[in-house]
Amino acid sequence: MKKIAISCGDINGVGLEILLKAHEQIIQTISPIYCVHYELLSTASSLLSLPLPSSLTPSMCLPPPLPLPTISPKTISQESGAYSYESFILGCKLCEERKASALVTLPIHKQAWQLAGVREIGHTQALSARYKKEAIMMLGCEKMFVALYTDHIPLKEVSSHIKRERLFEFFKALYHTHTKESYCVMGLNPHAGDGGMIGDEEREIQLAIKQINNELGKEVFKGVYPPDCSFIPSRQKEFDTWIAMYHDVGLCVLKAIYFEESINVSLNLPILRTSVDHGVAFDIAYEGKANITSYLNAIAYASAK
Amino acid sequence: MKKIAISCGDINGVGLEILLKAHEQIIQTISPIYCVHYELLSTASSLLSLPLPSSLTPSMCLPPPLPLPTISPKTISQESGAYSYESFILGCKLCEERKASALVTLPIHKQAWQLAGVREIGHTQALSARYKKEAIMMLGCEKMFVALYTDHIPLKEVSSHIKRERLFEFFKALYHTHTKESYCVMGLNPHAGDGGMIGDEEREIQLAIKQINNELGKEVFKGVYPPDCSFIPSRQKEFDTWIAMYHDVGLCVLKAIYFEESINVSLNLPILRTSVDHGVAFDIAYEGKANITSYLNAIAYASAK
Repeated sequence: MKKIAISCGDINGVGLEILLKAHEQIIQTISPIYCVHYELLSTASSLLSLPLPSSLTPSMCLPPPLPLPTISPKTISQESGAYSYESFILGCKLCEERKASALVTLPIHKQAWQLAGVREIGHTQALSARYKKEAIMMLGCEKMFVALYTDHIPLKEVSSHIKRERLFEFFKALYHTHTKESYCVMGLNPHAGDGGMIGDEEREIQLAIKQINNELGKEVFKGVYPPDCSFIPSRQKEFDTWIAMYHDVGLCVLKAIYFEESINVSLNLPILRTSVDHGVAFDIAYEGKANITSYLNAIAYASAK
Repeated sequence: MKKIAISCGDINGVGLEILLKAHEQIIQTISPIYCVHYELLSTASSLLSLPLPSSLTPSMCLPPPLPLPTISPKTISQESGAYSYESFILGCKLCEERKASALVTLPIHKQAWQLAGVREIGHTQALSARYKKEAIMMLGCEKMFVALYTDHIPLKEVSSHIKRERLFEFFKALYHTHTKESYCVMGLNPHAGDGGMIGDEEREIQLAIKQINNELGKEVFKGVYPPDCSFIPSRQKEFDTWIAMYHDVGLCVLKAIYFEESINVSLNLPILRTSVDHGVAFDIAYEGKANITSYLNAIAYASAK
């Protein structure tokens, strides 16, 4: 069974509850390395009145190099920020040393990272910084993955990033790390520019599609499709991976239809990292209400690679 | 029963089939004035092997001031362009003269309009030109209407339109022509700008929301919501009308979920116009395959006002 490193996320949020609830299921298919103190799982199980699974042994836990922290449910703290960061870094190292084949991260709190003096604002940025390589952010589930060509930049800046050569490199990187028979490439403008009447960035996209398909020797990248027609029912049957030029146009559909199933995947890096597609959910932390679907899907994607 | 003017759309597309198939249903709730030659409906019914309903009498038809044209299925022609344009203008006039309370348009072919020398590229633009007033374009169905703050402009130009005063006028016009208890106002940038970290246009939107809610004396316009989270299941339960800053972010969700039900509504004009949310569908024209759901919904919206 594949060994998967699992970072614990913010210990004051829903991460440990998810870890505990899903343990029996995930050990059917993978061998987890929990980057957390065993004692912390024991404390969390008491707080949650959830039995600590007998199959979850201390040998499955590799704690980060920090003292055992205190759980303060629903609270932003420097201590929890430092702990979740070190748990994440430990997970990265396990992958780098080939002791784990992938890293699954539970959600961190960005402000807690800030309090702990972490410079990067979140996992994806920290990965890009660590590996000096731009991560491709992809969200979704088996039926609908959306890969983002640009992610956290102002909408008005997106147009300036639409360049043939960079698109080509993006398509190539995506193809080699998330290989599919076909991808639905969405345009930038309404009606995909309507032949240049409503913007002309689609020309660059079209040229990049031609270039990558030529290189691959087959028509793998399809489009350019008008964004608003990219998810009509017939296209949902035809495709399972979409490429969005910017953050919201694909994600609003994904979250409308597959809200609880979705995961977050970081591609194009020396290690594979997957994550739940939700935050620490302080509003329901330590109340026994956390949903484990996204986590199970994140484990499944990581173990399938 | 309300009198509704119905323009026939391009006679070589699916319009007349839809008109014929839906006739018996719509006369249960409205009194149609078909802007078309009765003889043309008779010819279409023969071509389609659909019986001409006995309840559809010549007195329900008011032909546009043109000779009887010839139907050439699936064909772009100057003749059909001129005819669909005149049918549409006749429908407008019937509403202006209060002989009809609303206009429902069947789909035209933009190139046929061009061939016929029509300067406007489609219905919405023609309405704005006729009434010297910017139409608000809204698409959707009872469960999900999406009103577009900007529509057919390049994406990179959207940011320059996000101004408090203009947003306020838009909110006001929408409220008075499509009155709801609450509206979901979407932001422009990823994560609605994340407090200014990823773009700052949300400040203008926020100010406009405050202004309109103050004027109305209640919290009707809600937000600013991050676009990708605006359609999560809980928000779909909470809202039935969304305001999108640009064309694709709301429409891609609408067409993913309510593709066949959706209609197109032109608001903020001296007349109310609704339309099917699809084109002439030449690929299936005169094959008996046209779906009438969108048309029935367009009639229902028009008759409810």
